[in-house]
Amino acid sequence: MTRRIRFGLIGTGRIGQVHFRTLTASPDTELTWIADAFPDAARELAESVGAKVSADPFRLIGSGEVDAVVIASPTSTHLELIEEAIDRGVAVLCEKPIDLDIDRVDGLRDKAAASQVPVALGFNRRMDPAFSEVRSRVEAGEIGTLEGISIVSRDPAPPPEAYLGVSGGIFRDMTIHDLDMARFFVDDIVEVSASGSCLFDENARRLGDFDSAVVTLVSRAGVLISITNSRHSATGHDQRLEAFGSAGTLNVLNASTSLVTASTASSVESRATYQEFFLERYSEAYRLEIEEFVKLLRGEPSRCATYEDGRAALLLANAAQLSAESGRRIAVDLGRG
Amino acid sequence: MTRRIRFGLIGTGRIGQVHFRTLTASPDTELTWIADAFPDAARELAESVGAKVSADPFRLIGSGEVDAVVIASPTSTHLELIEEAIDRGVAVLCEKPIDLDIDRVDGLRDKAAASQVPVALGFNRRMDPAFSEVRSRVEAGEIGTLEGISIVSRDPAPPPEAYLGVSGGIFRDMTIHDLDMARFFVDDIVEVSASGSCLFDENARRLGDFDSAVVTLVSRAGVLISITNSRHSATGHDQRLEAFGSAGTLNVLNASTSLVTASTASSVESRATYQEFFLERYSEAYRLEIEEFVKLLRGEPSRCATYEDGRAALLLANAAQLSAESGRRIAVDLGRG
Amino acid sequence: MTRRIRFGLIGTGRIGQVHFRTLTASPDTELTWIADAFPDAARELAESVGAKVSADPFRLIGSGEVDAVVIASPTSTHLELIEEAIDRGVAVLCEKPIDLDIDRVDGLRDKAAASQVPVALGFNRRMDPAFSEVRSRVEAGEIGTLEGISIVSRDPAPPPEAYLGVSGGIFRDMTIHDLDMARFFVDDIVEVSASGSCLFDENARRLGDFDSAVVTLVSRAGVLISITNSRHSATGHDQRLEAFGSAGTLNVLNASTSLVTASTASSVESRATYQEFFLERYSEAYRLEIEEFVKLLRGEPSRCATYEDGRAALLLANAAQLSAESGRRIAVDLGRG
Amino acid sequence: MTRRIRFGLIGTGRIGQVHFRTLTASPDTELTWIADAFPDAARELAESVGAKVSADPFRLIGSGEVDAVVIASPTSTHLELIEEAIDRGVAVLCEKPIDLDIDRVDGLRDKAAASQVPVALGFNRRMDPAFSEVRSRVEAGEIGTLEGISIVSRDPAPPPEAYLGVSGGIFRDMTIHDLDMARFFVDDIVEVSASGSCLFDENARRLGDFDSAVVTLVSRAGVLISITNSRHSATGHDQRLEAFGSAGTLNVLNASTSLVTASTASSVESRATYQEFFLERYSEAYRLEIEEFVKLLRGEPSRCATYEDGRAALLLANAAQLSAESGRRIAVDLGRG
Repeated sequence: MTRRIRFGLIGTGRIGQVHFRTLTASPDTELTWIADAFPDAARELAESVGAKVSADPFRLIGSGEVDAVVIASPTSTHLELIEEAIDRGVAVLCEKPIDLDIDRVDGLRDKAAASQVPVALGFNRRMDPAFSEVRSRVEAGEIGTLEGISIVSRDPAPPPEAYLGVSGGIFRDMTIHDLDMARFFVDDIVEVSASGSCLFDENARRLGDFDSAVVTLVSRAGVLISITNSRHSATGHDQRLEAFGSAGTLNVLNASTSLVTASTASSVESRATYQEFFLERYSEAYRLEIEEFVKLLRGEPSRCATYEDGRAALLLANAAQLSAESGRRIAVDLGRG
Repeated sequence: MTRRIRFGLIGTGRIGQVHFRTLTASPDTELTWIADAFPDAARELAESVGAKVSADPFRLIGSGEVDAVVIASPTSTHLELIEEAIDRGVAVLCEKPIDLDIDRVDGLRDKAAASQVPVALGFNRRMDPAFSEVRSRVEAGEIGTLEGISIVSRDPAPPPEAYLGVSGGIFRDMTIHDLDMARFFVDDIVEVSASGSCLFDENARRLGDFDSAVVTLVSRAGVLISITNSRHSATGHDQRLEAFGSAGTLNVLNASTSLVTASTASSVESRATYQEFFLERYSEAYRLEIEEFVKLLRGEPSRCATYEDGRAALLLANAAQLSAESGRRIAVDLGRG
Repeated sequence: MTRRIRFGLIGTGRIGQVHFRTLTASPDTELTWIADAFPDAARELAESVGAKVSADPFRLIGSGEVDAVVIASPTSTHLELIEEAIDRGVAVLCEKPIDLDIDRVDGLRDKAAASQVPVALGFNRRMDPAFSEVRSRVEAGEIGTLEGISIVSRDPAPPPEAYLGVSGGIFRDMTIHDLDMARFFVDDIVEVSASGSCLFDENARRLGDFDSAVVTLVSRAGVLISITNSRHSATGHDQRLEAFGSAGTLNVLNASTSLVTASTASSVESRATYQEFFLERYSEAYRLEIEEFVKLLRGEPSRCATYEDGRAALLLANAAQLSAESGRRIAVDLGRG
Repeated sequence: MTRRIRFGLIGTGRIGQVHFRTLTASPDTELTWIADAFPDAARELAESVGAKVSADPFRLIGSGEVDAVVIASPTSTHLELIEEAIDRGVAVLCEKPIDLDIDRVDGLRDKAAASQVPVALGFNRRMDPAFSEVRSRVEAGEIGTLEGISIVSRDPAPPPEAYLGVSGGIFRDMTIHDLDMARFFVDDIVEVSASGSCLFDENARRLGDFDSAVVTLVSRAGVLISITNSRHSATGHDQRLEAFGSAGTLNVLNASTSLVTASTASSVESRATYQEFFLERYSEAYRLEIEEFVKLLRGEPSRCATYEDGRAALLLANAAQLSAESGRRIAVDLGRG
């Protein structure tokens, strides 16, 4: 039997706790270290599974007791933690985005590419059973030539102001998931257009951010990709995708919360709404993400997003921001040349 | 080009008017005579299309100016009109039921069978595009061996007391359509069980009738058929059918009245209800019924129900009534020997 | 009883024939004249209803025997026919577009505005029961503040090359319907962005046209409108609309062609596809369009699109064309000032 | 904080393992003992959680180290284990059925009723979120007066012959779940009719059992309940319920396995099938069953089925068997008088 991979977890916030549950439940993984700037919070988690705990993530990386780290700490800490892990030969699964500054991301790009240490990015939606089923069926030619992708992605409610202030704006914080999803289907995007509005979120308005956006991407072959975003959605987390091809269309619909339908004198309705938030909608994707990361570490084929994918998504997000501000369509070059 | 077939229409009530519209719109038919006990009502219809009118249906049948009659007059008149038409060599499409008395129906059975004159029964649901699609797909083997049929059939609201009093009861008046639909799929039914309740309709209670019923039919091969009836349905005319087979299931769902869906914080709903009543739900079936009857008259293959089908449906309805009253499963023999 | 309105029909092509059927079936209208450049084709239609026929539409307009004309002749003839009708005091329902040249459209703008003669544009989708239900419910506040509109509009197959060559390009020929639909919900559009591709239609490629397009519109209040177009669709005429608001979402789904669903070992499926083409999908809308036009002529409230609506849609189409070519977001001013 | 309840688990087969997972994951429960006739199989489970293990369930019940037992051993052992637990003051959650012999069930009835020891029956479908949502909405009056219930319940595939031979027949083994579900909505059932067929399962035929059945129940108030069963279903575990009332209908549809829909030139389909089997479809119900049982033990309101419910379901199953064999509607009296 294959040895369990020893993991360190950096950050025990909302997403960190999701990874905690997966890492302690999977037969492939063993959680040996937890680091969090607030170690008291982390201590209870650590004790329940016999892991060591520290306020210092560098101590975790340098412990010699972790084969891999999951980085779920604030975005501003990601780059130096990734670099440290590469230097120490510790594999990395880092939550998106790598960083909000493309220059800093580019600064580590060559080292990440040259290193033998696996570095994966947490674009978990690639792992979602529905999205990955659609991609497999597109690749199998089921809908002929792919001609368009439409993504609707709406959060249930805007984030708090404190989060918004360090988020990098809607394109780098929220749309970036959809930009990566677009690249999951069509990786050679060459043009970006975007329009944004601030319609309902006073915090976004104060920060000069948008709460609503539409982004159009065009691939080298002319595939047209449309992304529709909103920071709120009355019915819950609205996550849909349509792949349109010459021979048909594949749709991912929202996951409903109930199997019950009511028919009355005035309507046929379901009290069901969409699954409330990403932790619920994508719980299986988070679980599969660790599974795919383990495959990567074992040298097996893996669907994990790479450092290069993380850079490309940020570059597209930057182009969307520039387009929304300037009113120009932005040409992008994602390739290494 | 084929000559138009000359039709007489007997009865200009609700269903008579549906046939009027089809007979005057079809390029295959010409409406030359209309008969109604209240000729004033019929006169306006007749004049608008240049047809002759009479209070006496026998005059119509004997006019020498009709090739075929559609009988949409009260049930009690059906048998003698069918017989007169047979005697005069005029083809017949008669609304169901032939009669409420099986002995009277049997009395004309041999003559109808021996005659060259086409006699068709108005079991229009056989013509419905959805039901006939399911039957074709069952016959094509798409769901393997047929093992069960489930029919849900609920009217929007109970009929008026006057109608109910001469209707022959729920099984002979309403269930008879579903019994014929059952035979449309499985014609060798050998057992009938039924239970009825009177839950909401005071008129039905006064008359000793049921307003709700469940009927189980078993075919010679053991196919199990379940019929669920109610004289009312808040959401509109509820007409569903499921064909269950060894390799899959085919379902006819209700026709919705709208393409619009609303998603809100509490539900995903459609204000759509089912199509209100049979004239609306089965409008295409009524149109196709005349089309199929024309085929019958031209000697082409036709899906029209026959006199024998009308007799079988009544026999099953009688068995259902007896079963509901006696609490016994009733053996039936529908064959000619 | 109100007198029937006497109609002349100019053009008996595909859409002309649809109007022919409505005008001859409605109790409110009487078809007295038909004009077509190929009068032999028109003669049979005319004779079947006792209408006069001519190759010359001006003779029809000047006959003194029509209260209103429906113009369904080629686009290049629209403007002079509208002007002649205005001059003769004959009401006009003209198929879209008014003309492909905005300067020519502007040339008649003041006269059309000043005249008492009713001039309506054939944006029939406004009459569609589903789209107009959504608009009514949006206006009733059911989804709170309107924040976005998404329109998917795909034709079953590209038009023939001859048609394409005089069509004015995808934005002026096809998207124009969706641009008008956008204005049906949000009339103060101020910005237009568009991207187009030519992915499958050789004729479009040869003509420098697109066969696929994505258009983003922004209203003065920041409502974001997204239009996705393709000249083909394997599943049939793909016509969807989503209105997104602060309190919920309203969706118009495609009309299915069957009520039958099959469940097998591998799938749950419906053999149904979308209704094949616009004549089928929008048959009720075409009928209601004449009904609304009759209301307009009788001075009653009417939902008919106006000359001004026709001009606005062309102006938006021109902006989309310019944006797609230039890569710039185009500011538009649709108002009269 | 409330003390954990100490559980013993008797039987580690398919369902026993489901309960094992719940009992070891819940913060309310502690699994201290496991008994299985084949202790080797149980030993690995026991060791992984530090529980004691025995081949003798009586030793478990008498250990003094369990507050409650979950009985998931073969049906023939249920009664004596329940009695022993009652005698020892150990609470019981027993899988259905109590026993196949109504006389034996009646033999323990008074003792179970008189005892203070909680005895619950494993009719887990009552806990299913969809079914219990429907029941709550029916009780809240949402569909007016309840007039009918329709249950479709089809297993994916027939059980192996060995199981079938000791199952007690389709009504006591399979339909019993649906009979309990019927009583979940309408507890005063007074009449039972049933028809059964053997259409595809050679093992059932050899044993004189049915593989397909239709059951009709009538309540004192005349509510009509229809149950449709099959031992196989190509599309997976088919579990539907309809509650029909004077003001509307509530439906539980099948749980689908995918969010993806494909639209092609010939169909709109989902590769999704229903969830494969009861362990998957009812996994949440099994979890909630333990939760409700814990409430029962704590004296809180609980939705757990009782010994009396278990007896009533068996009595109805026996009546169905008798009706199917005799062709008579069977009157039943479920009450204590």
